[in-house]
Amino acid sequence: MSPKYAIGVDFGSESGRALLVDVADGRELATAVHPYANSVIDERLPDSGVQLEPDWALQDPNDYIEVFKQAIPAVLRQSGVDPADVIGMSTDFTACTMLPTKADGTPLCFLPEFRNRPHAWVKLWKHHAAQPEANRLNETARALGYDFLDRYGGKISSEWFVPKAMQIVDEDPEIYAAADRLIEAADWVIWRLTGNETRNLSTAGYKGIWSKREGFPPAEFYKALDPRLEHMVDEKLSRNIRNLGEKAGGLTEEAAAWTGLRPGTAVAIGNVDAHVAVPASGVTEAGRMVIIMGTSNCHMLMGPDEQMVPGMCGYVEDGIIPGLYGYEAGQSCVGDHFAWFTENCVPAAYEREAAERNISIHELLEEKAARLKPGASGLLALDWWNGNRSVLVDVDLTGMLVGATLATKPEEIYRALIEATAYGTRIIIETFEQHGVPVHEIVATGGLPDRNRLLMQIYSDVSGRPIRVSAAKQGGALGSAMHGAVAAGAAAGGYDSIVDATKAMARLRDEQYTPNPEAQAVYNRLFAEYVTLHDYFGRGDNDVMKRLKALKAEVLGAGA
Amino acid sequence: MSPKYAIGVDFGSESGRALLVDVADGRELATAVHPYANSVIDERLPDSGVQLEPDWALQDPNDYIEVFKQAIPAVLRQSGVDPADVIGMSTDFTACTMLPTKADGTPLCFLPEFRNRPHAWVKLWKHHAAQPEANRLNETARALGYDFLDRYGGKISSEWFVPKAMQIVDEDPEIYAAADRLIEAADWVIWRLTGNETRNLSTAGYKGIWSKREGFPPAEFYKALDPRLEHMVDEKLSRNIRNLGEKAGGLTEEAAAWTGLRPGTAVAIGNVDAHVAVPASGVTEAGRMVIIMGTSNCHMLMGPDEQMVPGMCGYVEDGIIPGLYGYEAGQSCVGDHFAWFTENCVPAAYEREAAERNISIHELLEEKAARLKPGASGLLALDWWNGNRSVLVDVDLTGMLVGATLATKPEEIYRALIEATAYGTRIIIETFEQHGVPVHEIVATGGLPDRNRLLMQIYSDVSGRPIRVSAAKQGGALGSAMHGAVAAGAAAGGYDSIVDATKAMARLRDEQYTPNPEAQAVYNRLFAEYVTLHDYFGRGDNDVMKRLKALKAEVLGAGA
Repeated sequence: MSPKYAIGVDFGSESGRALLVDVADGRELATAVHPYANSVIDERLPDSGVQLEPDWALQDPNDYIEVFKQAIPAVLRQSGVDPADVIGMSTDFTACTMLPTKADGTPLCFLPEFRNRPHAWVKLWKHHAAQPEANRLNETARALGYDFLDRYGGKISSEWFVPKAMQIVDEDPEIYAAADRLIEAADWVIWRLTGNETRNLSTAGYKGIWSKREGFPPAEFYKALDPRLEHMVDEKLSRNIRNLGEKAGGLTEEAAAWTGLRPGTAVAIGNVDAHVAVPASGVTEAGRMVIIMGTSNCHMLMGPDEQMVPGMCGYVEDGIIPGLYGYEAGQSCVGDHFAWFTENCVPAAYEREAAERNISIHELLEEKAARLKPGASGLLALDWWNGNRSVLVDVDLTGMLVGATLATKPEEIYRALIEATAYGTRIIIETFEQHGVPVHEIVATGGLPDRNRLLMQIYSDVSGRPIRVSAAKQGGALGSAMHGAVAAGAAAGGYDSIVDATKAMARLRDEQYTPNPEAQAVYNRLFAEYVTLHDYFGRGDNDVMKRLKALKAEVLGAGA
Repeated sequence: MSPKYAIGVDFGSESGRALLVDVADGRELATAVHPYANSVIDERLPDSGVQLEPDWALQDPNDYIEVFKQAIPAVLRQSGVDPADVIGMSTDFTACTMLPTKADGTPLCFLPEFRNRPHAWVKLWKHHAAQPEANRLNETARALGYDFLDRYGGKISSEWFVPKAMQIVDEDPEIYAAADRLIEAADWVIWRLTGNETRNLSTAGYKGIWSKREGFPPAEFYKALDPRLEHMVDEKLSRNIRNLGEKAGGLTEEAAAWTGLRPGTAVAIGNVDAHVAVPASGVTEAGRMVIIMGTSNCHMLMGPDEQMVPGMCGYVEDGIIPGLYGYEAGQSCVGDHFAWFTENCVPAAYEREAAERNISIHELLEEKAARLKPGASGLLALDWWNGNRSVLVDVDLTGMLVGATLATKPEEIYRALIEATAYGTRIIIETFEQHGVPVHEIVATGGLPDRNRLLMQIYSDVSGRPIRVSAAKQGGALGSAMHGAVAAGAAAGGYDSIVDATKAMARLRDEQYTPNPEAQAVYNRLFAEYVTLHDYFGRGDNDVMKRLKALKAEVLGAGA
């Protein structure tokens, strides 16, 4: 039998990436990136030039189709693989990224009469203009005693599905009425590929307030939010929520023509970028935490049973790996800290040194920071430059640094910021463990582990846990390809479960980071200080951060 | 009668400056600076190359004589003034800067047998190696119930006279035994000029644990420190403490030859740099606080009666202006903050912008920071990068910044540091007022007020008080010249009191900073936050700063 291949397409915030892998071992044969022509639409609508309010972030669904048309043919071309040997494909998406469509899947923004209406377009995950709606949702749910909030760390985010739908009905009810469907882009692209409208369990569970046992909240809840939303689930969503890795259908003739693949090629149900990265990192069991480390940290962890863990982003039965509860937590700001620091706080002398030695400023800072012993700077930071996601779930918290002296050097502050994010991860780990979800090992993936050995060692020293690094250069796209192989099934040369696919296709690097006992002892003492300050500033002892932020809004005339 | 002149010589840490002024109106006719050949001796002794321990800071007394020999002839030459018209002179000095001498005033370090002995040299004010002795002194005084500590905010500093003397006897008892005198450099230079050994009230009071009512502590106290110190006052100091502005004597033939002045020219008693700056800033009355703003802030204030104000540096009856209690407080780090920030935290892009516009980086930062509204950065800092002098008297406190976000800009941090020093000054002012020493107005002098209008306005807005700026470019040297005119007396064309001299010779600039009510309202709210954090970190609620510092010392292997 000839070798079989699968394709994964990873839809990011600015571009889509296709990856073609060998189904036997996950070997990457070709990859291609296609940037979205309209990128993130946050100032003016394309064509009409209609101006957007602050905090908006839209996208053009046509850009997603273009990824299929450009990136998939590119990987076929590069690899020379016969399309007949591509047994399956799948996609993963940012979430919640959602759009209104007609009954046949046509996005409202494709229709001339709605093209100049902002609410007709895709709302990207980082569209933050539905905060008033999120506040109303949370207050209503609390007032009426709905306990689904407990599944989401006590709060539904403005980034999620229902607040975004509420904003449409609040601000452009005509668009809401004209929408036969409100759908995650993750599901919409699968609909375009297969002709079948499906809804995946992951976005429904993590972003859509759905659970396997309770389904969606009852109609009375939606009615309490807005009478027009009472029957939203039945009118515009679907109660048929499909498991991850299931086959959504085969490629249509049209999609086959776009991609150069064969009509009928198996396509898996939609999925979420962070979640497919878990099996792509070799993890399908409980107790091993996968952290995607990039601009922010996303922590994913499975457990065999249902536990209420305060301050996580959500947990969903079967939400990452079928048969397990998938727990998600997050840190709002990790790589972004270092980028901020590099842009704003690194003196010219360091830039000159980096230029002379032909290394990046990050490399220079890492080199200088790596020479410092734990505890030697006397500095301690709270890593809240972009608020705190887990476990405090508070966007109004801000960054803090203590211990500065006239001898404090930039690399000491840089290292303190790295350490602070590691303490933040340790708080998440300890919160999970205190609530019955153990964490034995960490597997890191994403952009940071690749190029930042110091960061990895500090995370190991601070957390007291071994850290492995995923070998996948493109965790999202590999995870999608693996799900495509599962959709194809073993009979077609793929796999019957994501566990089987993971055993064959996912690998870790040989290198392993293990805690250095001496460093760990120092970090235990520093972590105790971190926890005290974390609770003092974060749990209400002194709400100075919120008051400073409110005062700032007041003096800038922006309201609180 | 021809115009009369006076000369002031200001001895700083790195150089001495002579200033020749018109006695009638204080007009500056000529000034000259002479840098000390041996500067601050903190690594190796001159000639012998003997290596010094960390924290040592010595000087060569010959460098002081060279200032007389070089700078006074220079101002005479520049001004063309007839030495016969110079009616008086005086000096001011850093303190406590002290040295061991023979009975005729010869410094022990001038003697070949002692030249390679570090303890034979001048200990500069910032010699910090007597900390163990200071700790022992404070513990002993507390244990034995001596209440003189109350006059010094509860603690004698390692920079002061007795700890420095204790270090000599501890580490080189032969030098201690060979020293017929231990004397402030402020008094030693007057001895060299006049041939008369005198002791000034200011250094005795502020640095030597002397007071007008109680004199020195009793011999039993010194004995408790070390039996060899029991009779130090009578053996090596003097109980004849002289008032400021009194005539110490006339110039000797030798000193006249050094300086080009007439033998017999009136010379005033020694004085302290910060204190002579008070009348030089036009202040001789209670209720007007003079702040010398430079690398650090020194706050001087007079009151009619004796008050115990916690956390000040000391108070001395007649210590600044005869007839009033002189109170002194301080902030350890002001201009030094800004220098640290500029060296360590300003990105290359800002340096390029400053270079292109041909302005200094401080000017650029001030310009950008001045565009910000109070409260608009959301930042708040504790100004403890170099510990806290008043009112917490704790060198182990460190800097803190709270409120940082990914949008925080360097100029926002810079402004937050300026504001933090202003809050620190407001705490000092409020502490004085709460303890019966009112502050109606601030008069600023020193290096910072000259070039930093933003800083001045922020101090006015934060303190809620008008600020005037001294017109004296060289407050120390002018103050000394004024005291020289008082030593000469009215009969010789000078003045009979420093109050009279001040009315005639000191001037303020026309410009005045007054609080902007809108800014003041915002700063009142920020100050309340500052006080909460000041007390939390500084008064024992959370001693994290000390623990971080101790941990740092531990991991660096330096001991705590």
